[in-house]
Amino acid sequence: MLDVIIIGSGPAGLQAAINLKIRNASFTIFGKKNLSESIQKAPLINNYLGIPKVTGSDLAKAFMSHLNDLKIDIVEENVISVYSLKDKFIVNTNINSYESKALILATGKPNFLAFENEDKYLGKGVSYCATCDGLFYRNKVVALYGNNEESINDVKYLLKICSKVYYISKNVVDGAININDKIKSLAGDSKLTKIILQNDELLVDGLFIIRDSLKPEMLVPGLEINNNHVNVDKYMHTNIKGLFAAGDVTGPPFQYMKSAGEGQIAAFEVIKYLNE
Amino acid sequence: MLDVIIIGSGPAGLQAAINLKIRNASFTIFGKKNLSESIQKAPLINNYLGIPKVTGSDLAKAFMSHLNDLKIDIVEENVISVYSLKDKFIVNTNINSYESKALILATGKPNFLAFENEDKYLGKGVSYCATCDGLFYRNKVVALYGNNEESINDVKYLLKICSKVYYISKNVVDGAININDKIKSLAGDSKLTKIILQNDELLVDGLFIIRDSLKPEMLVPGLEINNNHVNVDKYMHTNIKGLFAAGDVTGPPFQYMKSAGEGQIAAFEVIKYLNE
Repeated sequence: MLDVIIIGSGPAGLQAAINLKIRNASFTIFGKKNLSESIQKAPLINNYLGIPKVTGSDLAKAFMSHLNDLKIDIVEENVISVYSLKDKFIVNTNINSYESKALILATGKPNFLAFENEDKYLGKGVSYCATCDGLFYRNKVVALYGNNEESINDVKYLLKICSKVYYISKNVVDGAININDKIKSLAGDSKLTKIILQNDELLVDGLFIIRDSLKPEMLVPGLEINNNHVNVDKYMHTNIKGLFAAGDVTGPPFQYMKSAGEGQIAAFEVIKYLNE
Repeated sequence: MLDVIIIGSGPAGLQAAINLKIRNASFTIFGKKNLSESIQKAPLINNYLGIPKVTGSDLAKAFMSHLNDLKIDIVEENVISVYSLKDKFIVNTNINSYESKALILATGKPNFLAFENEDKYLGKGVSYCATCDGLFYRNKVVALYGNNEESINDVKYLLKICSKVYYISKNVVDGAININDKIKSLAGDSKLTKIILQNDELLVDGLFIIRDSLKPEMLVPGLEINNNHVNVDKYMHTNIKGLFAAGDVTGPPFQYMKSAGEGQIAAFEVIKYLNE
């Protein structure tokens, strides 16, 4: 079992990782090797003390070179769910399952609104992982919503299993029924049966929603949220023992240095927690 | 009147300063141009995300170059006292007096124990500023405790005014009675009359104590302290309206990134406060 799992590769997750590495804790950090798009796209950052007038992409390079220096590898798997048991966490990704004693949630600012009724049908027709749940929909009609690279691969996977795949996206995949439209809401009785789009309705057995990040409360059942952000005290403790949160996920100001500072605190609190 | 006064030039104060500059707030930052000794002396820092394997003195250079880039000047005056009035702060240094709407306290970790009875005789024979209070001791017997450069200058100043000056220090100043000893406690009735050293006792009218930083509660009367640290919530608010604290002064972990992150939050909260 790992000491710690870090979810997220923004400044909070990375700063936590370099501290855990130095302190010899065993850990895995899930995220993206090229960091988040929002860092890459930042035109000019001048308030990261010590690195003046830096573009987002150069700051990302500085972060990655620090990680390489410490031989820290970011694992590019998508975390689908986190379960808090008595004395460990189980983290399920689209590929594997992991266990750890403590967890740092650094998933960033959830930059989306959930669809109407999304939470109602979660596990009842709505899934966040095609490779995890795809086989439940063999020879059935499914839709997949998503605009990232992963969503394209997932559609290709579902096309091998399902009788019909709607792809609600700006992208296009051969073989799928490609629909460039917006989801308004989800409907059905006890299970999802219908997706209501702006200009159409789809009758489906299942809907896969593939976003870059999940809302923390969807990721971790029972996690306390306050004002759309994970509720933490000033030591980054959440309401769940052994689970710490850091960075944009804990609320404003949405700033790299604030995030990194919180990652630092979270790492130290995790070490304390592991020593207890 | 200034928008903000920042006291302290460690990572917390500097990160606050660069943010206030970018946000066009008017402010003065008090501290040392060559930053704190503790940064300068750090042998190797590897947990400041983006700047791997850096010596303290190189990190200090990176910080200073960021400040120069933004044309931020550190004012090298020693802050002696801060008074919180209804809608402003008055900050007295060894040289001048300043006013501001808001204040960020980033004075670092107070790395000393106050002498026994020091607080009891503060203003009753004990002073933290020779140039401020020296004239009250014209032709009287005083002692000055201190080991830094400033203490040497202060002894020279007092020698022109007082009948006798004891200099309790590792340093030596011609004309003073130089005593290389430790202060055990202070004594007297309503006013200080005696300094009890490890190996001696001195009868005095006054004692000047010159340290690199004052304890926050001595600096700001009424400031709430918890466990030897300034009590802040997670937005860096202290119990005094308009007064924010950031960095080591708010407690552990004593880490550059934690301090800088708190400086970031404090700057944003100050801007909000000024806009209210």
